Amino acid sequence: MTTFKAIVQYDGTAYYGFQSQANQPTIQRALESALAEITGAPVRVVGAGRTDRGVHARAQVISFQADWARSPEVMQRACNAQLPSAISIQSLGLAPAEFHARRSAQARTYRYTLDNRAVRAPLASRYAWHVSRPLDEGTMQAALQLCLGKRDFVAFGSPPKLGKSSERDLRSARCWRELDWLFVELKANAFLKGMVRRIVGTLVEVGAGHLHSTRMAELLAERDKQQVKWKAPPHGLCLWDVDY
Amino acid sequence: MTTFKAIVQYDGTAYYGFQSQANQPTIQRALESALAEITGAPVRVVGAGRTDRGVHARAQVISFQADWARSPEVMQRACNAQLPSAISIQSLGLAPAEFHARRSAQARTYRYTLDNRAVRAPLASRYAWHVSRPLDEGTMQAALQLCLGKRDFVAFGSPPKLGKSSERDLRSARCWRELDWLFVELKANAFLKGMVRRIVGTLVEVGAGHLHSTRMAELLAERDKQQVKWKAPPHGLCLWDVDY
Repeated sequence: MTTFKAIVQYDGTAYYGFQSQANQPTIQRALESALAEITGAPVRVVGAGRTDRGVHARAQVISFQADWARSPEVMQRACNAQLPSAISIQSLGLAPAEFHARRSAQARTYRYTLDNRAVRAPLASRYAWHVSRPLDEGTMQAALQLCLGKRDFVAFGSPPKLGKSSERDLRSARCWRELDWLFVELKANAFLKGMVRRIVGTLVEVGAGHLHSTRMAELLAERDKQQVKWKAPPHGLCLWDVDY
Repeated sequence: MTTFKAIVQYDGTAYYGFQSQANQPTIQRALESALAEITGAPVRVVGAGRTDRGVHARAQVISFQADWARSPEVMQRACNAQLPSAISIQSLGLAPAEFHARRSAQARTYRYTLDNRAVRAPLASRYAWHVSRPLDEGTMQAALQLCLGKRDFVAFGSPPKLGKSSERDLRSARCWRELDWLFVELKANAFLKGMVRRIVGTLVEVGAGHLHSTRMAELLAERDKQQVKWKAPPHGLCLWDVDY
């Protein structure tokens, strides 16, 4: 058995997230089907980030083990020919036997896109959340800076397994504007379920002036999920990058 | 009756083009339904460009006449609330009584987007044609320059009405690269049906080295539609702008 690492891009609109669920189309299932088809044996795929239903990925990283006599390039081409058009392997290569896309990952970067025009733009709506209220990106950036570092993010999400630590290390957080677009980019060792979307949802309240820029750090410190009522929709979110 | 001018953006993926056809969803029909719903009377919408099935518009211009006692802003909001999510009125205002979106237009600009990566990118595939062969944008730009001006474009398309002139004035034509993206932007007084897609299809053959950069101008001069076998798919095409 050989270990492989691959970078996968997908449009998550029609999928129930990355991870396999009974009887639902997921990215993991589509990848495992394609790999089983070309290798002739069941393949178990591990992803670096468990993206939720409707969330996209520019560069999800996966690992898997398979028996394969030909080159990785041939495997990539064969796999892309099998995959639905919403999913594509951008690169594929051999990895050390101990490589594990999730456990070996050092950090994940997510990018959230907001369309901050007065009127919704159909050509943007698949990958951006339309917020027509004027948003102040300076205040949003200030709020984010107060949330950096190792903290218990339980107010903003749930750990993948019940009872496990909800501490995460938010290493960088940026909010910036390009014309009518607002981008929020967060990098952490790992993220809790729903964490990016609750941070962005809260941040939009800050940007609209409904919450003070210090309020997000307070909510974080209070560790009370009941107080965090805002969650950005999934379609603006994209798993951008994974560091190893 | 008051005359209105509006700028409309749409994702054409699910539509049979701009112009109404019996029993098919078209942009014109969706706009007319929304306007009839809010004004309480049938409305006839005229568009500046007859985009084909699957073609998008960043800024299509429409005109129509309606009885409306309230402000254009209220009409815009009411209409956007009625329209499907793939279509949106970006701006709407009063126009002189003689204004006609198609007949008053001085020029149309279309932009075609090519994704020139080796591997297809699912996050780009809705609005860009994936061409994995390396393309040389310099040669493509050179080929375009030989096609500028008033010419009979019959080899590249059909006039909207049989027997009418197929002469068009190609006023500017650019092809440029941004990273792995290639853009082709064409501006003319008007375009024949299928003209942009046949020009881009032929241009890709030039960029890939299968046709010489002078061949496109020769095909134009030969005026033989049988010789132009290449037509780019609709999803990379977008009606970008209309001048008045």
